[in-house]
Amino acid sequence: MEKMEPRTLPGFMELYPHEQIEFDRIKNTIIETYKKYGFYPLDTPIIEYSDVLLAKAGGETEKQIYRFMKGENDLSLRFDLTVPLSKYVAKRHNELVFPFKRFQIGKVFRGERPQKGRYREFYQCDIDVIGDEELSIRYDAEMPSIIYDIFTKLNIGDFVIRINNRKLLSGYFNSLGLKDKITDILRIIDKIEKIGEEEVKKELAELGLNEDQIRRSLNFIKIEGTNQEIIEALKQMNIEDETFQKGIEEIESVINDLRARRITTENYEIDLTIARGLDYYTGTVYETILKDYPNLGSVCSGGRYDNLAEYYTDKKLPGVGISIGLTRLFYLLTEYNIIETDKSSPSDILIIPMCEDYEYIYEIKDLLLNLGITTNICYLDKGMKQKMKYANKLRTKYVVIIGEDEVNNNTIVLKNMYEGIQFTLNREEIMNIKETYLF
Amino acid sequence: MEKMEPRTLPGFMELYPHEQIEFDRIKNTIIETYKKYGFYPLDTPIIEYSDVLLAKAGGETEKQIYRFMKGENDLSLRFDLTVPLSKYVAKRHNELVFPFKRFQIGKVFRGERPQKGRYREFYQCDIDVIGDEELSIRYDAEMPSIIYDIFTKLNIGDFVIRINNRKLLSGYFNSLGLKDKITDILRIIDKIEKIGEEEVKKELAELGLNEDQIRRSLNFIKIEGTNQEIIEALKQMNIEDETFQKGIEEIESVINDLRARRITTENYEIDLTIARGLDYYTGTVYETILKDYPNLGSVCSGGRYDNLAEYYTDKKLPGVGISIGLTRLFYLLTEYNIIETDKSSPSDILIIPMCEDYEYIYEIKDLLLNLGITTNICYLDKGMKQKMKYANKLRTKYVVIIGEDEVNNNTIVLKNMYEGIQFTLNREEIMNIKETYLF
Repeated sequence: MEKMEPRTLPGFMELYPHEQIEFDRIKNTIIETYKKYGFYPLDTPIIEYSDVLLAKAGGETEKQIYRFMKGENDLSLRFDLTVPLSKYVAKRHNELVFPFKRFQIGKVFRGERPQKGRYREFYQCDIDVIGDEELSIRYDAEMPSIIYDIFTKLNIGDFVIRINNRKLLSGYFNSLGLKDKITDILRIIDKIEKIGEEEVKKELAELGLNEDQIRRSLNFIKIEGTNQEIIEALKQMNIEDETFQKGIEEIESVINDLRARRITTENYEIDLTIARGLDYYTGTVYETILKDYPNLGSVCSGGRYDNLAEYYTDKKLPGVGISIGLTRLFYLLTEYNIIETDKSSPSDILIIPMCEDYEYIYEIKDLLLNLGITTNICYLDKGMKQKMKYANKLRTKYVVIIGEDEVNNNTIVLKNMYEGIQFTLNREEIMNIKETYLF
Repeated sequence: MEKMEPRTLPGFMELYPHEQIEFDRIKNTIIETYKKYGFYPLDTPIIEYSDVLLAKAGGETEKQIYRFMKGENDLSLRFDLTVPLSKYVAKRHNELVFPFKRFQIGKVFRGERPQKGRYREFYQCDIDVIGDEELSIRYDAEMPSIIYDIFTKLNIGDFVIRINNRKLLSGYFNSLGLKDKITDILRIIDKIEKIGEEEVKKELAELGLNEDQIRRSLNFIKIEGTNQEIIEALKQMNIEDETFQKGIEEIESVINDLRARRITTENYEIDLTIARGLDYYTGTVYETILKDYPNLGSVCSGGRYDNLAEYYTDKKLPGVGISIGLTRLFYLLTEYNIIETDKSSPSDILIIPMCEDYEYIYEIKDLLLNLGITTNICYLDKGMKQKMKYANKLRTKYVVIIGEDEVNNNTIVLKNMYEGIQFTLNREEIMNIKETYLF
């Protein structure tokens, strides 16, 4: 029979088993943290009507989307988790409880030109809180506290959450008489870390800002100091613009709330350069940087918006949310050797039977499982050497060997494969195996 | 602005938040059990090259598949998790460890005509063990032991795993001189529970079986008794067909192994009517029936096959696996009120702040989170009544109320919303809240 070559599409992540274990470990840490804070799980279809999905979109999105006909239906694969959330909330407005807190972890699809670290199918891990007409500013502080929790637990080095408020930026540029250029200015400023100060100046000039406006703009976003000092400096500016004043009030509330939460101040800071490209955001915005790898860009971003679902409903639905691009994050973590996948094993223990007394073998297996130890059994019809080779390849740290001696003496042999040491354990010692011998 | 109606495609499951909690609970039970037994996680792309995905398929699959062009590429959405596994194993044969145990939970897509309980996008929850050239029969027994574990934990009523071996069926029909009709006979027999004995007789006659062959066939598959009695009866038949004898040997090994595992005999039985439609299976086959709802059909099926990836590689890769159609299962469980979703809440506790001392409130929150209690906080800028209404709508069982008195006395008020009783707890009592007051 002629064989088909088993190919995977470029731009689609497909990991080795030991890598997948680490990927899932990170995913589960994110899920468990989201759950802890009382977010509902949500799972929306991957396929939607194209007109529903594209109600708002345009430009890049339309070009990248996976869109096709099936029978009479014009269908598309979701390109993010925000549009499906908007649809969901608009559709079920009367049945949901507001503030509606939901998390969603799922694959989204964008037919970008494939390049290193860019995927066409990738996981997003989102949380959002949606209010009905209004939403407390305290949710704006809950977001960084959740980011803090996740990145502390992931244990991938120092990180800092950079916080800004779009009202400060738009209020300030408004006060410079640049009201109709705000969107473009924010788009340019948002690139400052990538393209540098000189390039930003150049682009602002091209946009029509005069020298004084450019100087003031850059001085403004470069205000530095502790969070308190920055807030104080903003107040001292005495800018009467209402949006600007609202921005000060909001960012001060967020910072005060984070202080009450006792988040260590090393892990968050006001950064007036953060604008986020999307004009969707209207208040607090966040980015998260790994301190040892600042040039990797933000690994968790988000912000506050005024209107989640304006394309579907007249209801005013303000919200705040964050998103972790897990597929890209995992790529970066492995590419820069920030995490190791080499020692990942699918089980804590591998039992190697060296006799046929399976009643005893299964009794031991059940005992270990009941202790919460993941337990694989090697059923290879081969000799000891081959079975140990199997254990090695699986990178299992602990092997339990059960032969006739063990059955007769009601014991097991436990071998630490990493250190090459082994013990014979009696029944009582097996009961304490977790505390005394493992990990 | 004109609004787009927020529609979801028919045949695509999209649950309410409280339903999604239960869906995820079931999914997590399945995942945790699969993991316990040392299966590697696997996550393959949802989109694949059409020619790769359809290497084997034909007929119904080709009609139902979601297939489309993107640029130059002919792409399809996966319609099961077995073909992606075949591709994966064939592609990475040299780097995998055999026996290769993997689980995969993911959405698959089939454009079936939508009808009640049939979905076009649905979750499959698969495990398979793949051998290189050979695979121990003990893995055939590990499968029902895992099914047993999952359905015991799901706590959705009595269930029975029906076990058969295709070699018994094909060996027997071979001995009746029906070698070239075996595939069709198995397809007909497999429907006996659905269409009844008379209809099976009719279809077998149409296939060309004479009266004697039909009578013998039905007598054969209707052999009843304990597992031991059935095996004994099979042996007593003295049929010399090699495949038949191999079938007896295999099913006896599986039953003996299950006995060694101390699986209660109420939960598994040999049933010679089980054939499974697919000609893919070559040995042990399984179905799982909820005893109180036998007409719902099998909720977990699978079996042994000789060759996982023959369309991609010359390597002989025998395997055994099971699959749970989670989306359909969840539909059935809710449709028949086997599970309740009414009381699902996204958190164990909702904190209701009745003062502005958020340092204290967050201290309590962290304390509860550290005890492993999922804890939401109500930030509604409303009065007590509105906040309690919010708690009610979230169906949260426990509410913690913190006002100025509580801050001053270093206490909290814990209210059980289901029973309408409340307690004031001091710091020591809070530390024991889980054991003494919750659940």
